[in-house]
Amino acid sequence: MNASKLTTISDLGEFGLIERLTSDITPKNESTVFGIGDDAAVLDNGGEKFTIISKDLLVEGVHFDMVYTPLKHLGYKAATVNFSDMAAMNGVPKQMIVGLAISSKYSVEAIEEVYEGMKMACDVYGVDFVGGDTTSSLHGLVLSVTIIGEVEKNKITYRKGAQPNDLLCVTGDLGGAYMGLLVLEREKQGFKANPDIQPDMDGKEYILQRQLKPEPRTDIVKKLSENNIIPTAMIDISDGLASEALHIAKASNTGVAIYEEKIPIDQSTFDTANEFKIVPSVAALNGGEDYELLFTVNQNDFEKIKNLDGITIIGYITDSTEGNRLITNGNQVVELKAQGWDGLRK
Amino acid sequence: MNASKLTTISDLGEFGLIERLTSDITPKNESTVFGIGDDAAVLDNGGEKFTIISKDLLVEGVHFDMVYTPLKHLGYKAATVNFSDMAAMNGVPKQMIVGLAISSKYSVEAIEEVYEGMKMACDVYGVDFVGGDTTSSLHGLVLSVTIIGEVEKNKITYRKGAQPNDLLCVTGDLGGAYMGLLVLEREKQGFKANPDIQPDMDGKEYILQRQLKPEPRTDIVKKLSENNIIPTAMIDISDGLASEALHIAKASNTGVAIYEEKIPIDQSTFDTANEFKIVPSVAALNGGEDYELLFTVNQNDFEKIKNLDGITIIGYITDSTEGNRLITNGNQVVELKAQGWDGLRK
Repeated sequence: MNASKLTTISDLGEFGLIERLTSDITPKNESTVFGIGDDAAVLDNGGEKFTIISKDLLVEGVHFDMVYTPLKHLGYKAATVNFSDMAAMNGVPKQMIVGLAISSKYSVEAIEEVYEGMKMACDVYGVDFVGGDTTSSLHGLVLSVTIIGEVEKNKITYRKGAQPNDLLCVTGDLGGAYMGLLVLEREKQGFKANPDIQPDMDGKEYILQRQLKPEPRTDIVKKLSENNIIPTAMIDISDGLASEALHIAKASNTGVAIYEEKIPIDQSTFDTANEFKIVPSVAALNGGEDYELLFTVNQNDFEKIKNLDGITIIGYITDSTEGNRLITNGNQVVELKAQGWDGLRK
Repeated sequence: MNASKLTTISDLGEFGLIERLTSDITPKNESTVFGIGDDAAVLDNGGEKFTIISKDLLVEGVHFDMVYTPLKHLGYKAATVNFSDMAAMNGVPKQMIVGLAISSKYSVEAIEEVYEGMKMACDVYGVDFVGGDTTSSLHGLVLSVTIIGEVEKNKITYRKGAQPNDLLCVTGDLGGAYMGLLVLEREKQGFKANPDIQPDMDGKEYILQRQLKPEPRTDIVKKLSENNIIPTAMIDISDGLASEALHIAKASNTGVAIYEEKIPIDQSTFDTANEFKIVPSVAALNGGEDYELLFTVNQNDFEKIKNLDGITIIGYITDSTEGNRLITNGNQVVELKAQGWDGLRK
């Protein structure tokens, strides 16, 4: 290899890198229904339901900051963000396997706290903790979580199924997790400057919880099922609304249009965004880590979906030739771009 | 928490830590057949076969040394050691999901090498690569591999099924991977002292391959099946023969007896052990990373198993009251203890 020709990871970006590494992979086993390219892999083990599997790697200093992440919350979040991937396939989580790499700076009691959080998440969401491996690391803590879930075969929802004229829907509200992160970062800087100052978290409870203790929307999966709604496409919002909407559009070979004014934003997210001089909808579009569901439904389901609590119609799917558009509050049409969480942080 | 009372991880050891963290966990879902405590978790998704799942976390500087680990070999080994866990359940690997955390010191080409190795392993063993996630790390490379496999329900083999008088069998030969590691470590030290010296690897090809490119014994799983042999208990040898034999005895609530003279050791392992002034059987008992299978069969299967190539009967299972014993070449009976790989390294 010629060193001068080596490609850096940032040249490609995360999605470009994955594409380069995995584009030549073709599944061969009968039991493999769907491989790389969605929130979870889909397997058919001959039962009535599909088995769905996803995994996540969380690295100290990259995905979480020990300064303001309570260990129990870390464990809880590591579990629930993966449960969210099951919801994104219209399924439910059933089993969890955890790998933990830890440096000697952590005590057994500290690791127990992480496990407590994971066990709590398992209890809340009816998931069995079926494997736990621990090993050493030279630097900090690495958590690797694998979740196995199930989904009825006729209800499985991929990113790729959206059709022009489908309605684009989102659950809950957006941007809160990102504003919570900014508050935590601000307090961290303040604490560094003056350790005697007490953190000022008044009125920030909701957005802090959004950041530190996200809940997967398995309730929405249940609600959709009860109302006989099968989304045509679905994804969970880990990287921000814009990025996820573009994923659906790309996988479905369509365009997408989002109305800025329709994006659901909580009052405390709105207020904190203003405090930080950030346009609230920008936090919602690019902030990420909200772990809400973004999905599309056929227009025929409009009557069924319009009055469901906790679901907002924010746009629609178009032909791919129309591109990906954001219709702003000022009624301007601009291209929808994914700045993403990493982009915002810089 | 009182800092003076905090427990360090080395106070408990790896197995003690896992026990402490997971002893209160009880599976609740119907689909969970077996959780923590074997080479893989076992799920019943309603099909004809069980689904088996295992995962491993490999950390740079702990599990591999970049100085002498070619990246392609690293990828290959990360995959095959997990395939080995499937074989240890008497099953076959079918799908693989990989998480990769990498620091910016790695180029895209370097990561491609790791992936090449993993893809090669998948091709050789008929496994589908169904998920690949990459993320940043602050330090070095972390690989997390999840393998999903399947096994016929009547053939699944746990660690816990051994009965007194069962024969203890092992595949292949032992101690080679550890001797390969010692050779690599020696050459590394030599290179540090004098970078102009060419490494002397003559005659070490076999043991280097044992260390750098282990192969899972899925062939033995097939051979056992063809000969209508279902082991009563099985485990793969990652930590050394002694440690794994004790795992079977503990899980089965039995004792175990091993004849030192029966332990299969390759000539080059034997020669290299002598070179390093290590008793060859000690390398086999405690060296680890051979990824051979250790299993027990009912005595009634003796006729079926005695002439199978690549399988050696090295001892037998006893009542738990008889303890765990090593019958030495000098016909002395000593307690079988797990020094393990970590112990040897110090």
